[in-house]
Amino acid sequence: MMAAKKVAGVLGATGAVGQRFILLLADHPDFELKVLGASARSAGKKYEDAVNWKQTDLLPEFAKSLMVSECKPDDFKNCDVVFSGLDAEYAGPIEKAFCDAGLVVVSNAKNYRRESDVPLIVPIVNSDHLDIVSNKLAEAHAYGKPRPGFIVCISNCSTAGLVAPLKPLVDRFGPLEAVTTTTLQAISGAGFSPGVSGIDMLDNIVPYIGGEEDKIEWETKKILAPLNETRTTVNLLSGDELKVSAQCNRVAVSDGHTECISLKFKQRPAPSLQDVKQCLKDYVCEATKLGCHSAPKRAIHVLEQNDRPQPRLDRNRDNGYGVSVGRIREDPVLDFKMVVLSHNTIIGAAGAGILIAELLLAKNML
Amino acid sequence: MMAAKKVAGVLGATGAVGQRFILLLADHPDFELKVLGASARSAGKKYEDAVNWKQTDLLPEFAKSLMVSECKPDDFKNCDVVFSGLDAEYAGPIEKAFCDAGLVVVSNAKNYRRESDVPLIVPIVNSDHLDIVSNKLAEAHAYGKPRPGFIVCISNCSTAGLVAPLKPLVDRFGPLEAVTTTTLQAISGAGFSPGVSGIDMLDNIVPYIGGEEDKIEWETKKILAPLNETRTTVNLLSGDELKVSAQCNRVAVSDGHTECISLKFKQRPAPSLQDVKQCLKDYVCEATKLGCHSAPKRAIHVLEQNDRPQPRLDRNRDNGYGVSVGRIREDPVLDFKMVVLSHNTIIGAAGAGILIAELLLAKNML
Amino acid sequence: MMAAKKVAGVLGATGAVGQRFILLLADHPDFELKVLGASARSAGKKYEDAVNWKQTDLLPEFAKSLMVSECKPDDFKNCDVVFSGLDAEYAGPIEKAFCDAGLVVVSNAKNYRRESDVPLIVPIVNSDHLDIVSNKLAEAHAYGKPRPGFIVCISNCSTAGLVAPLKPLVDRFGPLEAVTTTTLQAISGAGFSPGVSGIDMLDNIVPYIGGEEDKIEWETKKILAPLNETRTTVNLLSGDELKVSAQCNRVAVSDGHTECISLKFKQRPAPSLQDVKQCLKDYVCEATKLGCHSAPKRAIHVLEQNDRPQPRLDRNRDNGYGVSVGRIREDPVLDFKMVVLSHNTIIGAAGAGILIAELLLAKNML
Amino acid sequence: MMAAKKVAGVLGATGAVGQRFILLLADHPDFELKVLGASARSAGKKYEDAVNWKQTDLLPEFAKSLMVSECKPDDFKNCDVVFSGLDAEYAGPIEKAFCDAGLVVVSNAKNYRRESDVPLIVPIVNSDHLDIVSNKLAEAHAYGKPRPGFIVCISNCSTAGLVAPLKPLVDRFGPLEAVTTTTLQAISGAGFSPGVSGIDMLDNIVPYIGGEEDKIEWETKKILAPLNETRTTVNLLSGDELKVSAQCNRVAVSDGHTECISLKFKQRPAPSLQDVKQCLKDYVCEATKLGCHSAPKRAIHVLEQNDRPQPRLDRNRDNGYGVSVGRIREDPVLDFKMVVLSHNTIIGAAGAGILIAELLLAKNML
Repeated sequence: MMAAKKVAGVLGATGAVGQRFILLLADHPDFELKVLGASARSAGKKYEDAVNWKQTDLLPEFAKSLMVSECKPDDFKNCDVVFSGLDAEYAGPIEKAFCDAGLVVVSNAKNYRRESDVPLIVPIVNSDHLDIVSNKLAEAHAYGKPRPGFIVCISNCSTAGLVAPLKPLVDRFGPLEAVTTTTLQAISGAGFSPGVSGIDMLDNIVPYIGGEEDKIEWETKKILAPLNETRTTVNLLSGDELKVSAQCNRVAVSDGHTECISLKFKQRPAPSLQDVKQCLKDYVCEATKLGCHSAPKRAIHVLEQNDRPQPRLDRNRDNGYGVSVGRIREDPVLDFKMVVLSHNTIIGAAGAGILIAELLLAKNML
Repeated sequence: MMAAKKVAGVLGATGAVGQRFILLLADHPDFELKVLGASARSAGKKYEDAVNWKQTDLLPEFAKSLMVSECKPDDFKNCDVVFSGLDAEYAGPIEKAFCDAGLVVVSNAKNYRRESDVPLIVPIVNSDHLDIVSNKLAEAHAYGKPRPGFIVCISNCSTAGLVAPLKPLVDRFGPLEAVTTTTLQAISGAGFSPGVSGIDMLDNIVPYIGGEEDKIEWETKKILAPLNETRTTVNLLSGDELKVSAQCNRVAVSDGHTECISLKFKQRPAPSLQDVKQCLKDYVCEATKLGCHSAPKRAIHVLEQNDRPQPRLDRNRDNGYGVSVGRIREDPVLDFKMVVLSHNTIIGAAGAGILIAELLLAKNML
Repeated sequence: MMAAKKVAGVLGATGAVGQRFILLLADHPDFELKVLGASARSAGKKYEDAVNWKQTDLLPEFAKSLMVSECKPDDFKNCDVVFSGLDAEYAGPIEKAFCDAGLVVVSNAKNYRRESDVPLIVPIVNSDHLDIVSNKLAEAHAYGKPRPGFIVCISNCSTAGLVAPLKPLVDRFGPLEAVTTTTLQAISGAGFSPGVSGIDMLDNIVPYIGGEEDKIEWETKKILAPLNETRTTVNLLSGDELKVSAQCNRVAVSDGHTECISLKFKQRPAPSLQDVKQCLKDYVCEATKLGCHSAPKRAIHVLEQNDRPQPRLDRNRDNGYGVSVGRIREDPVLDFKMVVLSHNTIIGAAGAGILIAELLLAKNML
Repeated sequence: MMAAKKVAGVLGATGAVGQRFILLLADHPDFELKVLGASARSAGKKYEDAVNWKQTDLLPEFAKSLMVSECKPDDFKNCDVVFSGLDAEYAGPIEKAFCDAGLVVVSNAKNYRRESDVPLIVPIVNSDHLDIVSNKLAEAHAYGKPRPGFIVCISNCSTAGLVAPLKPLVDRFGPLEAVTTTTLQAISGAGFSPGVSGIDMLDNIVPYIGGEEDKIEWETKKILAPLNETRTTVNLLSGDELKVSAQCNRVAVSDGHTECISLKFKQRPAPSLQDVKQCLKDYVCEATKLGCHSAPKRAIHVLEQNDRPQPRLDRNRDNGYGVSVGRIREDPVLDFKMVVLSHNTIIGAAGAGILIAELLLAKNML
């Protein structure tokens, strides 16, 4: 007998991330999307009348006539999980109110990413950080308290691609001394309104994305960090423990962030090139082991052709949940350099949220 | 009274670089282009019938009816300077024959760049390396020998942009320990036949350019190197003296290479951010001091807006002879990082050749 | 009980169209691809070693180790149908030899399109023209002759999009007096070698595609023509019966040809705008009625938003077998104008071939 | 002795069109730009502080420290001519107030284009329509009235390209029966805020530009129309006299509108193809005859290569004041078809304004 589907809601449903959540939840075997929340201006309308649908896939039938709610906990009280695609401008108090009301929020907003007891998750990388939540739930249960709400944060999109190859390397060869990344980021990461202007993306690149470099440099030190002894908070890595430097560029690509990264191990001598490649080829993420619906067959695809990965050709591996790594080679300055391609709206945003919820379900946290 | 113009020739005149040489020599105050050399297939035709002209500027009137010669020294014997836009496949023996015949060759080909007694010149950077030539000429003169031919090599296009800010920093703050660059290179660098394919440059980037990373890593160590005591050869920097690491990408930009670079000084403590910026702002290259016709007003433009330089907006500073540097900031891994934009067909190729010839003229070497 | 799959082959298997045939035949319920033919240079190699695979979908597993044959009928003698993606340069004698050997060829090449007894088919438009084949087969059968081979031609890609809305209009409102189309054609229509150059498709359009306008103007008069009385040849429309004018442009789009068309009916007064729209909305093509596997749910999607269809958003309707028509409005010069978008490699090339074969199967001609 | 320069002002100086006016007026031999008007929000600031400069040319020195005024006639009272780049939303009352105050306004806004006594001018096409103004000035003078203000309107950008080849043909071969144009329009025509979005211009075209088709269809009938007998108003052509049909698309091009046009003469038989080409080659516009500073050497460049004109290669002919016409050939539906390329921000907007003012000056109307 099949288990009943869990009830899902989406906050910020008319925005770029919200639209992706809706597409990914259409025909999902584990979740049934029943509540769509948006601004007061959209509330009360049918979703198809409220949204300016901008996806290449058509608006799914089931979503067309869903009535849009305001972003208030009461309207979502039957939801087992709520996906938040809210802008950072609004996400803070709304997500807190949802959490306080006992709801589970998987959020793409940046507002709570830096709280040490909020897991910041790239689901193919550090799903073990969800222990923070399971311990919180277990504690409440042990004390006979009602089941508490909680927030899990999705990482920044370019951080996701960066940490994907770093984690297996750290697991096998020990901590890193330094990491650099120069990103070539897709337009879809900037949302719709106003998004990136056409003239800026024609015969041009823009060597700046506001706040992005700081996010990468900070979030990497949380995602690669160990938990504390009781596994209830993250012991953030210091700048002395791990040096991270990012340079971010916007380029004329629709989907798929490319990153030219370099890294140096603490371990001397460093592992061999062959060992590094093999380590990445061997990697199997927990979501794959648990059989999560959206988990990639391979979390990391190691490409051997010298001109790959390329966004147009490789971004959709495993429906965008697989990260491609190519040109792994020695680096005259640090130890190794390589090119990483990740799908920014899938493993780097809404898709990560779905896979996080699947992990929560598989681990009995929903 | 004005000096008579020097007579110039162009080898590889129908190719991408050759076409640029012709444009840059039209109405030039110092040079008169009189001889065009191309393959046997083109020789004997009027230039306008031999060329598939692909520039946004029209084919200059003077060049239309010039008769195309074969690439043989005899046809160029009246030339004071010969600019070579030959493919590397053909450049080797032809340029050697020209040199042996006593001709002066300024070449964009890679064939002789690594000879220690051939100057490899970025004209806004290391014009002092032309001392190798002046000493050779002086020696021949001293011994009553006929004036020898010589070759001066133009650097690789992306190397030119990289070394532009490095040189003034090295001059003021001493040698560098390490340099990294991730390039976002324009299509025009790839020439015409076949060049980069349209489908590869649509919603895509290609994270590989054959041979390019090696060129940057090697040439930087020659251009930043000192000459020997007699100033007759270059004392190439070793990989221990300077570590250079390049990652090269082709992006959908017509002209203008963007590079995200990082650098570390040997000097500890490193100079301050303010000192670094001021040093770049203060830089005046020798070509500017000598009043060379094509010399930029400013060799380096330091931009303060956080989203600059951008290829579309900044590549044509000083007609493409000025390099733009922006986002100068501290780097958590090395000392400083910044974004450099240079016009790949001007300061990175044909334009550099013209300015080199102007330097040779100003220094009485033609 | 399921019928055994028909055996299929592909000619020109390493080219752009051949690669698409292979993708479309992977996991096809009716056909099993068993033979791949290419040039002598590729023959004898495993397909994965012979091909420079350039599709965004990965090379299907089944095809990797298929041994490449030369394009000779003997190697294809067990094929029920052979799809030809050969260049026109080679297709003529090869396809004729296959036909003479009793094989069924569905060809994307232009060589036999203008033969009056060779059906030129857009499968969602004029599948009734396949009567030419069924009558040929019936006649052979009646005379006790062996089952003859035959060729069916796929139309030019931009012709396919144009005739899609014209056919239902002609069927309901009678013949057209005049049709004009200005096309904005995708890069993928130009194949790989060399294809369209990157610099030509950056901040540019090319207002010319060799031979294309003539193909559209000619093929439209064949596809919209009636068969003769015995339904064995096409009675090509003359230039007096139907005036067709095309202006073709190449634009920076990967897939999907957009066409701005205008048309004038012979019938006076012309039908109303409302009637024209309704006619297109009502259209159901024969392939859909017959339940062919690849047939679109809707052959024509009439879009009401004023800024649609757009290639990025609409080209994949019904997996590229559905054509989108928008902005249907009155035209001050002819009667009506509208914008048509069709997927050039699906309904305009390889995909059309697959659907033609499905039609042949459904109509018992394989 | 040189005449003193006329004093010029610019309304809407911070917008896209205003910025172009400023660039075109820098170092202009006839005009000295002294007053810049913008919104109340910008007024009182130095121009360099008020503007978000988005041009590839640097902000001219002279304009940096000009103090921005509000758009009130008093601040412009010393101006001999005022160029208006105001948005249509604001242009109506402001331009009227300037005109009522006796000022000369050359406007890019659409507000007064359809007034029969306001000349709608493409300066290389219908400069004779300025007779409306000279007659108005003469009448005031005859009656001893003060010199009245007046407005001259610049046409819509895509209209300018269309009428450029039509006018000489009408002048030589008599009126046209019908004209069609399908446009492929550049991004710069849409201004900055918000302009066209990046994602819409990546691997895409948008087959709709709000209001554009109506503007082309209407304005063409005014620009090609004769004046009345007293040459004081335009006798607009009716839809029966001239049928015009436009289909407008936005494409990924920075500057330069391409139009695929067809036309039919009233005269039967139509002129020959050779006559049509020769007529366009022979055309010399009045601005060229009068020696206006910005007038193109050739108003119309007839290109013979079959793949031209192309925006990237041909848009800057005569600094953007020359229109390129290629692929002139017979049309199976109307009489002739051809491809027209015009620079939308020069001859189609700000540049046209400058040349109109030069014509006014040459004709003693300033």
